[in-house]
Amino acid sequence: MFYEVIPHANLKHFCLDVFAGYGFAAQECEIITDVLLAADLSGFESHGVQRLVRYHREILSGMTEVGTQPEVVFETPLSAVWDAHKGMGQVVGVRAMQAAIQKAKTSGIGMVAVRNSNHYGIAGYYPNMAVKEDLMGICMTNSESIAVPTHGKSAMMGTNPIALGFPADPRPFLYDAATTVVPRGKLEVYNKNAKPLPDGWALDADGKNCCNAHEIIENIIHKTGGGIAPLGGASELLGGHKGFGLGIMVELFSGILSSGATSNYVSCTPEHSKISSFFAAMDYGLFGEKTAIRQHFSSFLQELRDSPKAEGEARIYIHGEKEFESRENKLRDGIPVNQKTKQEMREIAAHLGLDYNRYGLEAQS
Amino acid sequence: MFYEVIPHANLKHFCLDVFAGYGFAAQECEIITDVLLAADLSGFESHGVQRLVRYHREILSGMTEVGTQPEVVFETPLSAVWDAHKGMGQVVGVRAMQAAIQKAKTSGIGMVAVRNSNHYGIAGYYPNMAVKEDLMGICMTNSESIAVPTHGKSAMMGTNPIALGFPADPRPFLYDAATTVVPRGKLEVYNKNAKPLPDGWALDADGKNCCNAHEIIENIIHKTGGGIAPLGGASELLGGHKGFGLGIMVELFSGILSSGATSNYVSCTPEHSKISSFFAAMDYGLFGEKTAIRQHFSSFLQELRDSPKAEGEARIYIHGEKEFESRENKLRDGIPVNQKTKQEMREIAAHLGLDYNRYGLEAQS
Repeated sequence: MFYEVIPHANLKHFCLDVFAGYGFAAQECEIITDVLLAADLSGFESHGVQRLVRYHREILSGMTEVGTQPEVVFETPLSAVWDAHKGMGQVVGVRAMQAAIQKAKTSGIGMVAVRNSNHYGIAGYYPNMAVKEDLMGICMTNSESIAVPTHGKSAMMGTNPIALGFPADPRPFLYDAATTVVPRGKLEVYNKNAKPLPDGWALDADGKNCCNAHEIIENIIHKTGGGIAPLGGASELLGGHKGFGLGIMVELFSGILSSGATSNYVSCTPEHSKISSFFAAMDYGLFGEKTAIRQHFSSFLQELRDSPKAEGEARIYIHGEKEFESRENKLRDGIPVNQKTKQEMREIAAHLGLDYNRYGLEAQS
Repeated sequence: MFYEVIPHANLKHFCLDVFAGYGFAAQECEIITDVLLAADLSGFESHGVQRLVRYHREILSGMTEVGTQPEVVFETPLSAVWDAHKGMGQVVGVRAMQAAIQKAKTSGIGMVAVRNSNHYGIAGYYPNMAVKEDLMGICMTNSESIAVPTHGKSAMMGTNPIALGFPADPRPFLYDAATTVVPRGKLEVYNKNAKPLPDGWALDADGKNCCNAHEIIENIIHKTGGGIAPLGGASELLGGHKGFGLGIMVELFSGILSSGATSNYVSCTPEHSKISSFFAAMDYGLFGEKTAIRQHFSSFLQELRDSPKAEGEARIYIHGEKEFESRENKLRDGIPVNQKTKQEMREIAAHLGLDYNRYGLEAQS
């Protein structure tokens, strides 16, 4: 696929105007744009501007509502349950994490479980908000069913990422990973390139290993069976039951603790936009002197980096490092955007009556 | 290997007398024996009475100290850090979880990070204590290094299990799994049976996939490189970097939050018995009406069980079910003990001056 590199500031300008065009308040546009472009900057193209067209459709269909505000339906000094009332996932997510951070500063720990929300972008964005306040941050979310239970053949859970951030030097630890072997976006890349999937990624409608990306994606879309394997694969041999269990945990923290929907009741329709998410922050001063704890963790991460490399490998990456370096490079050099996404952006601009040509989106190729 | 089936009560009687023989107080003997036999009952032979000989050696060498008491070195209403002062892992673990439960009852959440402890048996025992009090329970522990970082070739982390329990009907959800593909015990079973390891389980001293169980175990014992792959395998293709990250999280909660040792500083010697563990309990009433939350979770688990099965599979197991059924069967029918373990038990009895023949350990074969 052909990519053009566009300066971050130009993409930001465009996205701000697009979301203002839907009727979001200025502060909401800032939030949505920052989460969206954080994905592109980090190298997660699947969760970046290529998803604009999806948000566009969700807003037009009424699956995502623009003027709505989250409602606090239950609260304690340590915890809260929010009903997002179909709000934009990023706006709800950032506000829920801000609330969790505020509780953590006051009470040591803050947890907010959210129901009836929408897709919120990259899970890792939210714990990173806590890390910037020198707190531990945790975020999980369910999503439309795509993951097949061990010994099953129907998708019953989402990709259900777990994200955890903790301050460290020179860079924080920032884990953000689906509890499936791969996220859906990876299947789509193999499909676009007509490449066979690696063994162990996906299951056909009978629950058997399947390397045909097109077949898997069609089955997922039409809910005709099969899907992606949990982390560890489809069988217990390599630990697929562990990934399955981690997926259940994410349902517990998101869909269950929020008294919301589990992934098997979520679908991308106005009636069933019911994603549930969980946001938590913790002041690690609950365990002693923070500077010493942070130094201790930083030393351990450095020991991992410095440990001997496998034959043919030059570097051991700590979680968050690749994304941090990608961000530095792309803030300086620009963000690669593929042609299909650019065409979608043109159509969105036309729909909203924006002058596509004034944003400098035809930049350096 | 030849097994004999021994009634639970007889094994319990024997273990109680063995630990009393080392000088543990009666209540401590009850705790250690209950945790130990919980493993055998649940079907985890590797963590049951076959480990008696290991505890025997650790107590005789001074790696585990008998008369010592854990010390509270830091405390808040939500949290504590304990120094176990080389106490028996099970005794420290049960007391730390009791403290976490007490805090959860008073404050909503309780967390205890423990340093300078020893091997504590199956991780799942501790969250189950919280579940019995209608709370969520979490437990993690590090251990002697055996897991190789993604792109690395030296063991830097333990098998680092994560265990989480949550009340549900008819049975609680009880997840307990290493963050490696398999625990060390599985390699030992393949080695005893001279079977080649499945691809993706282990790495040789160069960091390459290796199916020779004997070679891997020798390398682990002599710390000459290689070890077990993180959950997801050795490469990023099937998500090994995710298991690596989960292993780091366990180090963070155990070794770092306790200001104790990370796995790369733990070894089974009197000087380096420094295992760190983390125990947490949470009152899920922090998120609303408990009966409704419990029912919601129970329904979701039932939907998973009832979902369509893969070709050739009859049942989808929820985490904890296999163990619960094993426990029911073995409480009724007895616990299978292998001949090597029985020989070790005879030697332990002789060492402690116990009359081996009075415990009914030569029961039904």
